[in-house]
Amino acid sequence: MLVLGIDIGGTSTRALVTTVAGDRVGFGRAGAGNPVTVPVDEGASNLRSALAAALSDVDVASIAAVVAGAAGAAHPEPVERALRAEGIRCPVRVVGDAVTAFAAGTDEPAGTVLIAGTGAVAAAVDGDRLVRTADGLGWLLGDLGSAFWIGRAAAVATANRRYAGAATSPLTDAVAAALEPGPPTGVSTVDGDAVVTAVYRREPRELAALAPLVTAAAEAGDPGAETILDEAAAHLFATVSRVRTPGPLVLAGGVLRHCAPVRQGLVSRLGPEVRISTARTGEEGAARLAARLLAR
Amino acid sequence: MLVLGIDIGGTSTRALVTTVAGDRVGFGRAGAGNPVTVPVDEGASNLRSALAAALSDVDVASIAAVVAGAAGAAHPEPVERALRAEGIRCPVRVVGDAVTAFAAGTDEPAGTVLIAGTGAVAAAVDGDRLVRTADGLGWLLGDLGSAFWIGRAAAVATANRRYAGAATSPLTDAVAAALEPGPPTGVSTVDGDAVVTAVYRREPRELAALAPLVTAAAEAGDPGAETILDEAAAHLFATVSRVRTPGPLVLAGGVLRHCAPVRQGLVSRLGPEVRISTARTGEEGAARLAARLLAR
Repeated sequence: MLVLGIDIGGTSTRALVTTVAGDRVGFGRAGAGNPVTVPVDEGASNLRSALAAALSDVDVASIAAVVAGAAGAAHPEPVERALRAEGIRCPVRVVGDAVTAFAAGTDEPAGTVLIAGTGAVAAAVDGDRLVRTADGLGWLLGDLGSAFWIGRAAAVATANRRYAGAATSPLTDAVAAALEPGPPTGVSTVDGDAVVTAVYRREPRELAALAPLVTAAAEAGDPGAETILDEAAAHLFATVSRVRTPGPLVLAGGVLRHCAPVRQGLVSRLGPEVRISTARTGEEGAARLAARLLAR
Repeated sequence: MLVLGIDIGGTSTRALVTTVAGDRVGFGRAGAGNPVTVPVDEGASNLRSALAAALSDVDVASIAAVVAGAAGAAHPEPVERALRAEGIRCPVRVVGDAVTAFAAGTDEPAGTVLIAGTGAVAAAVDGDRLVRTADGLGWLLGDLGSAFWIGRAAAVATANRRYAGAATSPLTDAVAAALEPGPPTGVSTVDGDAVVTAVYRREPRELAALAPLVTAAAEAGDPGAETILDEAAAHLFATVSRVRTPGPLVLAGGVLRHCAPVRQGLVSRLGPEVRISTARTGEEGAARLAARLLAR
């Protein structure tokens, strides 16, 4: 008996077939499946590609349960349609990606999850249900402490430093080089305009790509970068504090996985009594939830 | 002898002909002239329309000086080209709109100006020169305390209140009605998604249109609206504090003109020793500067 876990995200769509015990049997990935990021047809096509790859060596009749986690409002119909097209007839559950992220970090049924990747959201989870959420409002309205937020703070610090005619720092040099490829133009107020213009020429979400530069600068001791990451940790602490519930706290997403200063800043604010674990991937969480559904 | 003052903005382009003493002789307005907001050709065409209307009853040979204030980086060439096409041969100065806003509020040569309209910027001004600026980074990177910032804060408060399942308030009712025209859908977590989706369906800048709803709610005693406007005032105070210089402080822009709670919150933070005046329109400031150029 096998289970299928699916992660429908803004960057990629991933499908994982495992045994009920969690051993990997098949895997597939394709581009974004989230209708917030890509057109509905493109998302559906990416989901079909990921499914086809994951199921290529699998007898679909042995798939006994499916769980899919999706960012944003989860619409089950397109997922069910894609699975039926692959010949899968078993029960299908579509849940928020915070639910699968929580299951990817713990075997306990209830607790709290904090995701900080390109975006940021915290949720109290009970079983396969979101009890309540905090933030998760997207780059324009929220996502405080996310990679987008960190990248934007770095762009602001770089522009302000140049407008003030202050000396550059490792962080502002790295950000300016990323935004304005080409030879450096020297420090003047005109360069503040150049930084700002370069940001507005791009898609807002591309600011998230600056976040790793902030992590690198902080790890090299740049105080401006350290301040940004500490503020990110403070925002994430405030977000998770709005929904904290008894049980473990699962941390997920690229910022909490790869940016040590943010993770440390968060953990030290949480204090030693909080049980913290790190999420595996969303599709692993989804597959675990599917196995748990079978066990009920 | 006449002077011509021009305000090239993100919403409109306005041209004013006055005597050296400031008496109005001709006026014209057209759509946005700012190359940040509209394509260069459209901006140039709007500038020509505004000039043609302002100059329709004027002997252009009597125009002895021209000053134009422009938001963002000021490029003199297109302005000079449009003026030459109208037969104007006198000296032309193109300055930042903070310079004309300052001149629109005082006859003193140096001091500070704070503009809070759709965007927000503070500047120390000396004559027709910007000495230094703070904020003015646009909606994505800054504009803290601007109409955009206030409107966004109102959208966030509305979404958070609905996600929390809390009671609505006059502010969140007004914001939800503006974002989701149609019958109210009741309070549930689903509605938080509806508010967020409605925001992302629009252009980000359109959030500024929610600012007057916040002012109205605050004036009706809504504590959430009062908090937003007090935070806006605190941001604007921090921005202007970064560039304060001896001389008067001129306040300009729709938020400082029409939103009494923000203005009061700012003025009380500044303290009684600051000399504050309110700017007239940008084109009046530009015409005054032009007259001052002649007097030198």
